[in-house]
Amino acid sequence: MEHNQHGTLQPTGNSSKCGPEQIQRLLAACREAKEFAYCPYSKYPVGAALLTTDGKIFSGCNVENACYPLGACAEQTAIQKAVSEGHTKFQAIAIACNSKEYYAVPCGACRQVLREFGRHWDIYLAKEDGTYIQKTLEDLLPQSFGPEHLNII
Amino acid sequence: MEHNQHGTLQPTGNSSKCGPEQIQRLLAACREAKEFAYCPYSKYPVGAALLTTDGKIFSGCNVENACYPLGACAEQTAIQKAVSEGHTKFQAIAIACNSKEYYAVPCGACRQVLREFGRHWDIYLAKEDGTYIQKTLEDLLPQSFGPEHLNII
Amino acid sequence: MEHNQHGTLQPTGNSSKCGPEQIQRLLAACREAKEFAYCPYSKYPVGAALLTTDGKIFSGCNVENACYPLGACAEQTAIQKAVSEGHTKFQAIAIACNSKEYYAVPCGACRQVLREFGRHWDIYLAKEDGTYIQKTLEDLLPQSFGPEHLNII
Amino acid sequence: MEHNQHGTLQPTGNSSKCGPEQIQRLLAACREAKEFAYCPYSKYPVGAALLTTDGKIFSGCNVENACYPLGACAEQTAIQKAVSEGHTKFQAIAIACNSKEYYAVPCGACRQVLREFGRHWDIYLAKEDGTYIQKTLEDLLPQSFGPEHLNII
Ligand SMILES: [Zn+2]
Ligand SMILES: [Zn+2]
Ligand SMILES: [Zn+2]
Ligand SMILES: [Zn+2]
Repeated sequence: MEHNQHGTLQPTGNSSKCGPEQIQRLLAACREAKEFAYCPYSKYPVGAALLTTDGKIFSGCNVENACYPLGACAEQTAIQKAVSEGHTKFQAIAIACNSKEYYAVPCGACRQVLREFGRHWDIYLAKEDGTYIQKTLEDLLPQSFGPEHLNII
Repeated sequence: MEHNQHGTLQPTGNSSKCGPEQIQRLLAACREAKEFAYCPYSKYPVGAALLTTDGKIFSGCNVENACYPLGACAEQTAIQKAVSEGHTKFQAIAIACNSKEYYAVPCGACRQVLREFGRHWDIYLAKEDGTYIQKTLEDLLPQSFGPEHLNII
Repeated sequence: MEHNQHGTLQPTGNSSKCGPEQIQRLLAACREAKEFAYCPYSKYPVGAALLTTDGKIFSGCNVENACYPLGACAEQTAIQKAVSEGHTKFQAIAIACNSKEYYAVPCGACRQVLREFGRHWDIYLAKEDGTYIQKTLEDLLPQSFGPEHLNII
Repeated sequence: MEHNQHGTLQPTGNSSKCGPEQIQRLLAACREAKEFAYCPYSKYPVGAALLTTDGKIFSGCNVENACYPLGACAEQTAIQKAVSEGHTKFQAIAIACNSKEYYAVPCGACRQVLREFGRHWDIYLAKEDGTYIQKTLEDLLPQSFGPEHLNII
């Protein structure tokens, strides 16, 4: 991971466990999911697509609410979808937004939701033009809180 | 809607727009979805299944998090799933839990999430043995806040 | 509780346990709290003020977030404040918004947060001009989910 | 910031803008706030205390809910309290839990809530015995999403 002194995200070398074809499938899936975003309040559509360890893709979009705190992020939608169909082992997630300026980055809550299902995620962050950078969950949520802190699972 | 003086839910006559076969499909779908609940913290599995106005069923389960506020309810999972696949018009939802004593009832947040997508929902609430009662969203969230309060859509 | 066929809130007779002076103090407190709302996204300021059973008032406002789901409602702020100063027994809450058209109504999530701390709340809902109506939590969240469903407290 | 290869938090040198006396006041305040935690579900009390740029301290605890996603973290309670009393400029937060093994770390959602109010936070993370380590928000939420991504404030 590299980032310059202003905290701007910089592309890093690809050390992914995903092959280039899988990455492209993920990026396409999150771009498509973005089209279904229900975001009349923020007008900020986001799409996410995750890859299970056995190669399945689940995607999601943000689903907002007039009571703003009751909305849901795209990444969480993708996770909930996968879990509700019996998948809890993941290897990667890709996220797309419409920004020409910024790579899509998950909010802190979404980083924590990913963390629930493991420390080892590859994360692909895309701009509107489809260019992307690769991070890991450890890059984005260092020194994380997790299930082991509760000592119950 | 009838309820006795202690607020216990009582079965009401079926005035549903759903036919008996659709209701049984919904009840079966939410019972199946419950099996995928990720709830190591509450150990309280919940399943939900909703019916779109064009007859499709989407189901979901609760997906919890070691940081409890970051969990998601079954009803929200079902909604997010449907929306992320292009469906935003719904007519009914069924909810199942493992309680032998109580019918599954949606929390206030889930009632509000349903409300985002319309006032007219039939809601089927099931016990573990499969018996159920029927309510409407208006029964469960009267005098609701909604998108029109913000005057933006 | 009365409401007409369109679900519009109608004033009801005051059967409150609060005296008129306490109600006015609550209404003033929630109006003042509204001034501190941090709501650059919704531009919809809300204030809430609650009354403990021993006569103390705690107030709060909404506190939003660029990641919309991470915002907090005014009612929740008031509750968290009171709890964090050792108060968990409440009798009433008043809520104010800037609408000239609608009485402030709590979202479903806030109704559930009130419910955590008891079934018996008087709720005063104010418009921008200070006129208000009185409801109870039972009016606004009938057949509610609550702690007893989990059988753990 | 230093952390070993397993991601365990390691004490780092104090480069804080807070003086030692202020740090001790913050640590005491979050320890005291922890006593008011309402956490019958997780049984995991947390306290937080933040310092405004003009030297005021606001503290909070976690406030849980039978519907787990409707709970609130201690850090958020402290922020909401400060904002609702007119303070939005902060310099530091301290967090305490009852763990003998782990330093208290904020969840991802709380990191995002801090981020809403600026990038430059000193964060003090305490164990049950009062020992602590110092981090910054940049350490804990690198490459963060924030208000500027929405281009609206
Ligand atoms: Zn998010
Ligand atoms: Zn719910
Ligand atoms: Zn609310
Ligand atoms: Zn937190």
